[in-house]
Amino acid sequence: MISSDKASVFEHPIRIYWEDTDAGGIVFYANYLRFFERARTEWLRTLGFGQQVLRDESGGMFVVSETAVKYHAPARLDDTLAVTAEMQNSGKASLTIAQRAYLRTPDQADRLLAEGTIRLGWVDSLTLKPGRIPAPVLEALK
Amino acid sequence: MISSDKASVFEHPIRIYWEDTDAGGIVFYANYLRFFERARTEWLRTLGFGQQVLRDESGGMFVVSETAVKYHAPARLDDTLAVTAEMQNSGKASLTIAQRAYLRTPDQADRLLAEGTIRLGWVDSLTLKPGRIPAPVLEALK
Amino acid sequence: MISSDKASVFEHPIRIYWEDTDAGGIVFYANYLRFFERARTEWLRTLGFGQQVLRDESGGMFVVSETAVKYHAPARLDDTLAVTAEMQNSGKASLTIAQRAYLRTPDQADRLLAEGTIRLGWVDSLTLKPGRIPAPVLEALK
Amino acid sequence: MISSDKASVFEHPIRIYWEDTDAGGIVFYANYLRFFERARTEWLRTLGFGQQVLRDESGGMFVVSETAVKYHAPARLDDTLAVTAEMQNSGKASLTIAQRAYLRTPDQADRLLAEGTIRLGWVDSLTLKPGRIPAPVLEALK
Repeated sequence: MISSDKASVFEHPIRIYWEDTDAGGIVFYANYLRFFERARTEWLRTLGFGQQVLRDESGGMFVVSETAVKYHAPARLDDTLAVTAEMQNSGKASLTIAQRAYLRTPDQADRLLAEGTIRLGWVDSLTLKPGRIPAPVLEALK
Repeated sequence: MISSDKASVFEHPIRIYWEDTDAGGIVFYANYLRFFERARTEWLRTLGFGQQVLRDESGGMFVVSETAVKYHAPARLDDTLAVTAEMQNSGKASLTIAQRAYLRTPDQADRLLAEGTIRLGWVDSLTLKPGRIPAPVLEALK
Repeated sequence: MISSDKASVFEHPIRIYWEDTDAGGIVFYANYLRFFERARTEWLRTLGFGQQVLRDESGGMFVVSETAVKYHAPARLDDTLAVTAEMQNSGKASLTIAQRAYLRTPDQADRLLAEGTIRLGWVDSLTLKPGRIPAPVLEALK
Repeated sequence: MISSDKASVFEHPIRIYWEDTDAGGIVFYANYLRFFERARTEWLRTLGFGQQVLRDESGGMFVVSETAVKYHAPARLDDTLAVTAEMQNSGKASLTIAQRAYLRTPDQADRLLAEGTIRLGWVDSLTLKPGRIPAPVLEALK
């Protein structure tokens, strides 16, 4: 069961397709980084920041500088996951986002499949040199 | 502009994320096969046939035996595509599905990005030997 | 058994890892497009044309405009494939490359797993507008 | 510069293709987990343990239970990486493997691009229940 404060956390649904699985019959673990990113991207979008617009307007982009993921239970073909994203730490040049993937079950007793943290830095899109996260983005995420 | 008979065709929305793009700045062409499969899978699901349930109940599964795709225009980060699936030909042991990916635009003048056909055979899940598509599945798809 | 004229065709070895497989226990069909591209890329490299160098020097790049693949037999975890690439047709603005994936077996009786054709166009890297394939590249590939 | 004790560490070469990159013009970070796995797989193979043979003979398989990766510098199209794998910790039911990805440069001053640890558990292939790593595998890896 998910704790009650999950209500305030951004959540994005992910469906599992053949492309996500491997010969073990379960979701290939590296794909959780993709699921986490889809949720982060949709979270930013709900706050008004599309990835392409961010690049075009600011000349910069987020890059992932660190990932840590724990895998608790496998997902399978046709499963629906609920993937969350919430701010854990924020500085002027980097953010750490906490993320979780839950298995959606008919009885609503969602099961935690994987959880992790993703550290993001900000770089100039052309030079890839580190810089400060644009203030409006940082404000919105807090 | 999409022809008026698109109204009757199954359509599934796909969002473009970083994972889908390549260093050319556009969606990596091989990923359209994934988008097409997501749409086919959701189409089957609306007809009552989840992939895992199909395997568990029939002991068989669809396998792709042939793909043909033409790429007309690129998709980019943050784009939303509408991916269609419709039956083109069906036999007892194989089906051909016609699929298209359109770029969803604010003015509704969707643009065709890619189109193709996917030929599916039916095999036993364990032996991978070809067999007949279960009649209820074939009926529902027609 | 591979016909004797395979000797003159460019061939690139590919190992199958977990990432390449799906829950059917076999290689996910869309991944053959990746294997074909790796072989084409190495073929171009042996002719003196790295992808990045091509972009930097010519300001253009190849884009895939059409793919057609037939799947004959599945590959599995740990298999080694031999993937070939050879020119089928060439024009000033596009090329068609024929490609095959064979299963390498200990007794050398390689088995054809998949075969297809990839049509490539040439575009400006920034505008993505079609253009002529640089003459030295075209010459080398013939 | 790589420290001199890298000589004793297993190392596997990885070439960067279009499929590995994203619209940022660099390798998509999640793909380093794939590169790490290819290196681990080849390391196990050199010790006599192919993944499929392991499954067939022992009825079990490794599953990834935890990953942690730090990204130091980006890789690009056509780059060649050297990916290492070495045992960090081993128990009866789990292992932790330390892995690094270096950019191979012409002057041999390889640059560290990414590093991480991968924790592996052992499960029954059918039930996915945890079990003990087969003794011969554990012995060979030490």
